[in-house]
Amino acid sequence: MEYEELRELRDKVIELLSEKNFREIKRLINELQPQDSALLLDEMNEKDILPIFRLLSKENAAETFVEMSSDGQELLLNSFTDAELKAVLDEMFLDDTVDIIEEMPANVVKRIIKQSDAQTRKDINEILKYPKDSAGSIMTVEYVSLREQWTVKECFDRIRKIAVDKETIYNCYVTDSKRKLIGTVTVRDLLLHDYDISISEFMKREVISAEANDDKEFVAQQISKYDLSVLPIVDSENRMVGIVTVDDVLDVLEQEATEDISKMAAVTPSTDTYLEQSVWQIWKNRIPWLLILMVSATFTGLIINSFEERLNALSTALFACIPMLMDTGGNAGSQASVTVIRGLALDEIHPRDTLKVLWKELRVSILLALCLSVVCFGKLYLLDGMVFGFDYQWYICLAVSLALFATVVIAKFVGCMMPIIAKVCKLDPAVVASPFITTIVDALSLIIFCFISLAIVPPFLPA
Amino acid sequence: MEYEELRELRDKVIELLSEKNFREIKRLINELQPQDSALLLDEMNEKDILPIFRLLSKENAAETFVEMSSDGQELLLNSFTDAELKAVLDEMFLDDTVDIIEEMPANVVKRIIKQSDAQTRKDINEILKYPKDSAGSIMTVEYVSLREQWTVKECFDRIRKIAVDKETIYNCYVTDSKRKLIGTVTVRDLLLHDYDISISEFMKREVISAEANDDKEFVAQQISKYDLSVLPIVDSENRMVGIVTVDDVLDVLEQEATEDISKMAAVTPSTDTYLEQSVWQIWKNRIPWLLILMVSATFTGLIINSFEERLNALSTALFACIPMLMDTGGNAGSQASVTVIRGLALDEIHPRDTLKVLWKELRVSILLALCLSVVCFGKLYLLDGMVFGFDYQWYICLAVSLALFATVVIAKFVGCMMPIIAKVCKLDPAVVASPFITTIVDALSLIIFCFISLAIVPPFLPA
Repeated sequence: MEYEELRELRDKVIELLSEKNFREIKRLINELQPQDSALLLDEMNEKDILPIFRLLSKENAAETFVEMSSDGQELLLNSFTDAELKAVLDEMFLDDTVDIIEEMPANVVKRIIKQSDAQTRKDINEILKYPKDSAGSIMTVEYVSLREQWTVKECFDRIRKIAVDKETIYNCYVTDSKRKLIGTVTVRDLLLHDYDISISEFMKREVISAEANDDKEFVAQQISKYDLSVLPIVDSENRMVGIVTVDDVLDVLEQEATEDISKMAAVTPSTDTYLEQSVWQIWKNRIPWLLILMVSATFTGLIINSFEERLNALSTALFACIPMLMDTGGNAGSQASVTVIRGLALDEIHPRDTLKVLWKELRVSILLALCLSVVCFGKLYLLDGMVFGFDYQWYICLAVSLALFATVVIAKFVGCMMPIIAKVCKLDPAVVASPFITTIVDALSLIIFCFISLAIVPPFLPA
Repeated sequence: MEYEELRELRDKVIELLSEKNFREIKRLINELQPQDSALLLDEMNEKDILPIFRLLSKENAAETFVEMSSDGQELLLNSFTDAELKAVLDEMFLDDTVDIIEEMPANVVKRIIKQSDAQTRKDINEILKYPKDSAGSIMTVEYVSLREQWTVKECFDRIRKIAVDKETIYNCYVTDSKRKLIGTVTVRDLLLHDYDISISEFMKREVISAEANDDKEFVAQQISKYDLSVLPIVDSENRMVGIVTVDDVLDVLEQEATEDISKMAAVTPSTDTYLEQSVWQIWKNRIPWLLILMVSATFTGLIINSFEERLNALSTALFACIPMLMDTGGNAGSQASVTVIRGLALDEIHPRDTLKVLWKELRVSILLALCLSVVCFGKLYLLDGMVFGFDYQWYICLAVSLALFATVVIAKFVGCMMPIIAKVCKLDPAVVASPFITTIVDALSLIIFCFISLAIVPPFLPA
């Protein structure tokens, strides 16, 4: 639903509210997808949320609740009667309940746990036990398990009986008497076989699974690589403990990409959206990086101060080129580093490819540097020198262009190597990205620039 | 499978090949997941690929083929007999065939089309007609369609009959006599109802769908937002034309994130992986941005040249601070821009939130700027001035710190506004990201620095 439609709908609901036409509101909101009715509720005034929420049908209520913002959820949880809370909780899938619990303050959590039945309570605690970012923390324990000796008919009976409660019924897991995972059967397999055949005859015995303590990113990679819709999660003894579905993995992949992008821009990643974060949170995520980078950048100042007198004796126009040199070095470096970081993240580049990457970047950088130096020479000599009349003699332009050439080649080298080195050292490649590489490249290119200028320019100066 | 396992397996297969022990190779490779046997084949010598591929069972052969690199696929397509090609094509899903066709040179495409049956040929051409990046270009035409008046039993009979060929059977689409999409039924619904009920009694009539000409990113958003496993694709008259499955969307989401990351680092995005791209391709994707940015950066040189004499009269130490000022401005700007760009991409921030974003960035930037200026003052005055003995009088440090303060605030302002303005102008926010913002911030901060220095420093200079 587009924002304009949503706003129209909200205005309409507000009007209907003032007319106390609850029947029409009920009709309207129960026609929406739960994601859309959640958006609508999040747009309403606080005092109107509960009355409207009560007009949702039992099933829509739970699904809408899951999709609402955590502020809206907290408000509802605080206003629900015990019976209402229990009704919503009973309809929710376990992994959604756990997600909500992780967001709520302690008093609300206590109420939720109190209103859950004993089994759910046990399951919630089980999942909460797994470390953050582990497969266990995003799995659900609601799946269909079958036994090897059952016939197709027995399996269908079982599925029909328990299907209402289960998040994913199409992939069923065959376990032995010790709950060990020994195979999988899909509803499709069941449909394609006769009723009286035992599933042991056609179940798939090679199962791709993950352990509950594996990283959730690993789960996402497995699901993406093997095109799965569900991945079974087992404990260290191969006992089935839950499943992770592909829709949870979509969220994981988006989060991972957002985290990498944040790190590349020198921001500590946050799981909250930008608008949800407080000013202090944002400040906290940004200030350490800015400080580190600022302090390390001031060392370029020391380099300039050390060479200042000698460079000034050559030509003051040399100084004016330093920002351009540094910017271009920084840009060239981040092109290489960001490409390599993304390649590492998507498993397309491995540390064993280091030589291939280096050889490729070397050739690319020489081509790029050649092109940039020629344009730089021309621009400085013709435009800044001839047209604007600044002091750009050909030997000054030559020194700047040569320094630019060296800067680009070095920037590409540092840019492609740093992420790989980080990966080998088991550090996060995204953290060493652009800004850090910029600082290193800045310092190196400045030193090179000073030496090249001091080597090339003096012979041509008028005595 | 880890790389080490893969390499061991490859060495083993090479050994078995030299012993001509094909039976054992056959056993080994048919036990693998198709994704892993594809990796194995891609690691073999060219001449060994076909003999080993021939040892795969019919079904494994097609699935392995789909997962191989395009170089490997081309090699096989050129060495297949017509019968082999037909066997592989018959087992492949249509969307995979189309993906492969899009990668292959014309002569290979001709052979593929020739070996396909008439219906497949027609379907392939149908999909190839849709614009690149449209929903139609990633959909498959293989889905289960049912009729409203059928009973559950009739539906199951239909599914059992055609299921072998269909990529996704769990979501079935109810169409009328004109092929218009009127509802959906899941296998789960079918399982939960009695055999003799007509599906019209329980089918879902509100269907979320996309049009074949919609952008594939829209399809990905719908699937992700509504937690779907399949999205039906219709034409402009709501006639069913195909489906897009969630595993295709995983690839789209990864691609989109990669594209955004590339653009933020000023690289033209490519659909090939880094190692697949030639040196020229990489050069072509990088050089235009580097050139534009370099030329625009040289204008900072003009600013410096214009102020040079007057600044030099104050203190040469002022120059040395320019790189630090610019780097910090660039970093502060990209923190803001990248956060906003990602928020826009994930639909968490909208242009209507502009004021909220501005107000938040203003407060964050003042806090950040305060902190950075104080540290900068201390570092310059105490370390560079007192310890290293450069010319950092307190009024010089004050001018630099004030300029830093202004730079950070301006950088945050430009950084958060540019992506939103781009979005409003229907431009791609990722393209205006970091490097462009850096160039603008560089120029602004330089000018501010010069004016602040000229205003603050002179009164304190010894006459």
